[in-house]
Amino acid sequence: MANFDPSGVITITTDFGHKGPFVGVMKGRMLSRFPRAQIVDLTHEILIHWPAEAGFWLARSFTYFPAGTVHVAVVDPGVGTARDILAVTTHGHVLLAPDNGLLAPVVGRHPDAAITRVDSERLGAFGVVRPSATFHGRDIFAPLAAELAAGRCIPDELGTATKSLVPAWVDEPQIECGFVRGVVITLDHFGNLISNIDSSLVRQFRNPVVRTGGHEFALRRTYGDVQPGDYLALVNSFDVIEIARAEQNAAEGLGVGRGAPVTVLDRP
Amino acid sequence: MANFDPSGVITITTDFGHKGPFVGVMKGRMLSRFPRAQIVDLTHEILIHWPAEAGFWLARSFTYFPAGTVHVAVVDPGVGTARDILAVTTHGHVLLAPDNGLLAPVVGRHPDAAITRVDSERLGAFGVVRPSATFHGRDIFAPLAAELAAGRCIPDELGTATKSLVPAWVDEPQIECGFVRGVVITLDHFGNLISNIDSSLVRQFRNPVVRTGGHEFALRRTYGDVQPGDYLALVNSFDVIEIARAEQNAAEGLGVGRGAPVTVLDRP
Amino acid sequence: MANFDPSGVITITTDFGHKGPFVGVMKGRMLSRFPRAQIVDLTHEILIHWPAEAGFWLARSFTYFPAGTVHVAVVDPGVGTARDILAVTTHGHVLLAPDNGLLAPVVGRHPDAAITRVDSERLGAFGVVRPSATFHGRDIFAPLAAELAAGRCIPDELGTATKSLVPAWVDEPQIECGFVRGVVITLDHFGNLISNIDSSLVRQFRNPVVRTGGHEFALRRTYGDVQPGDYLALVNSFDVIEIARAEQNAAEGLGVGRGAPVTVLDRP
Repeated sequence: MANFDPSGVITITTDFGHKGPFVGVMKGRMLSRFPRAQIVDLTHEILIHWPAEAGFWLARSFTYFPAGTVHVAVVDPGVGTARDILAVTTHGHVLLAPDNGLLAPVVGRHPDAAITRVDSERLGAFGVVRPSATFHGRDIFAPLAAELAAGRCIPDELGTATKSLVPAWVDEPQIECGFVRGVVITLDHFGNLISNIDSSLVRQFRNPVVRTGGHEFALRRTYGDVQPGDYLALVNSFDVIEIARAEQNAAEGLGVGRGAPVTVLDRP
Repeated sequence: MANFDPSGVITITTDFGHKGPFVGVMKGRMLSRFPRAQIVDLTHEILIHWPAEAGFWLARSFTYFPAGTVHVAVVDPGVGTARDILAVTTHGHVLLAPDNGLLAPVVGRHPDAAITRVDSERLGAFGVVRPSATFHGRDIFAPLAAELAAGRCIPDELGTATKSLVPAWVDEPQIECGFVRGVVITLDHFGNLISNIDSSLVRQFRNPVVRTGGHEFALRRTYGDVQPGDYLALVNSFDVIEIARAEQNAAEGLGVGRGAPVTVLDRP
Repeated sequence: MANFDPSGVITITTDFGHKGPFVGVMKGRMLSRFPRAQIVDLTHEILIHWPAEAGFWLARSFTYFPAGTVHVAVVDPGVGTARDILAVTTHGHVLLAPDNGLLAPVVGRHPDAAITRVDSERLGAFGVVRPSATFHGRDIFAPLAAELAAGRCIPDELGTATKSLVPAWVDEPQIECGFVRGVVITLDHFGNLISNIDSSLVRQFRNPVVRTGGHEFALRRTYGDVQPGDYLALVNSFDVIEIARAEQNAAEGLGVGRGAPVTVLDRP
């Protein structure tokens, strides 16, 4: 059910980085329409033009915000073309993003989510007129997020219900007998390699071992369980398999990066 | 007319980057004086010691914020020397910055702006006492912005009206018959080359072509109008001529950077 | 005395950088428990796994925030191991951090601070249940900060009073007759070299001279007191000795970085 009772909180996720006023003017537009908005940056360092990472993080993060939060994600190489905009409502949150695969990981984890395809002909009713061809974050997403967060409209009013959306850019992990194969979907600032393998996929394994980049790592509980400089694998705080190096940078040390295959096997 | 009815919003623009507590303590000072302030970062990645970029972005961004916003810009190589501080009031906004050319682009676009030269002898009346010699962002700009945003003073009270200010660091584009010559004033995170040529200067052109770095580009509407990897020019969302490369980095691809000449011509 | 009357402001200091949703979800957790929290980023670019820099900046910054502010600092290579969490109350502020030396500079400057060792068995009473092994910023620090900032608990209730804590990672400057020896503790975005030598230590010097990297610099008042490109030393806005290069990058110019010795001597 598409239940949404706004908390006044809006999060923003982009690949804009921190140069220039791009994120700032989105906030200015939000505050112009909804002065009491509480706006939180999720991250602006999504890999440029890669919606998959934004969707991965949003799907794993949004429930840490108050129910009633509007989450805007703008990783949008197709801005100004015919690509659609979607509003996904689930668990009392609304997620707004281009229909370019970004929201597929959210819907994948919440198959009962309500999906609304935003109807560009209705935008005028929400005060969105003559958007630029190159910055829908400011001209469409920010005003819509403010209207939703202020409680002046509900997702249903933005367009028509749909069940279809552009599929995810990254395949779900493949599960075989005694094996799960996924990929490194993102790196954090510490150089930890974060995979898309949910811990639930390996929960039955009696002796899980993680392989990537030609190396093999035992599953530990936390970084401090090995000596500084040693590698380890763990189920991280977002419930996916991660490969790390205690007090050092695993990505640099292993020469492994985004997209690299990761396999978890149940060692007999 | 210097009309200013505070919204409670304050924006901050600096060249401080994100290392250290510099922006944070400015916010701390603002909240100490005005607990209900809503503070938005415009950007802290202005090119170090280059007020021109801060002025360019502020002049193109400030109207996206609610009327009644105070905009503080601190790109200030002359901090602690005899340089003055200006408060520019226009369209219901106040912009506070050192008198080092930073605000010239704002006044250039809004010639009816009211300019106040801050009188350092009046600072004590606003509780600004013994500022450090090296961090006026924290010790002068933050307190003044908070007083203005809280409605406890108006720009006129900060000093004396003036018509003069340090001129801009970058010349306005030169207009000749069938030509406009400007420069790349900034790059964004995507490597798009953003010029200082306002779209109004080329509006009469029937067949506009953009030249930079020895290459020539047709004017398109948005990035998706060309194939990934192809270059294009466009009028961007801040109404200036931009050179881009679809889904790639134009600055790296062309080897062109800040300050490079950009010409728009009307191809016969 | 551990007096704390909450202002509703929370600051966050980490070594998380800006990739990924780590800081954002901390804010989400805070807002879920305390919707009126005003959350300020102090910095997220602390040198990875180096609590000393976080402690240095916090000790010099916290008083610029309103009394009643909760300051959370998460530089935490020992997350999930047996390391404790401390709450330090001083001057009407509370500072929460791992007991890994991070808060030693705060206590060093405020020896009358009240120190509470957080009792993990009491966490459940504050709704902290089953924290992850790798992200206490989200699972323990954020909830506790929200509870404190909301006025629903006081630091004393979090655990037991203590006088001991893990000592600082960087020695206090050594004072000899006519000499003070310290180190470069951090660099700012401009490449200024910031030492741990408080100005009070050299206040009696009649003719102070600063040495680092085999060079010697006179003490000036501000950057503009020398010609662009020239080096200088000064007492910076956080009251410590800094070595700078006017309008340029001292760290790059001198080839000096974090940890380098800095000496101030009183030239006869």
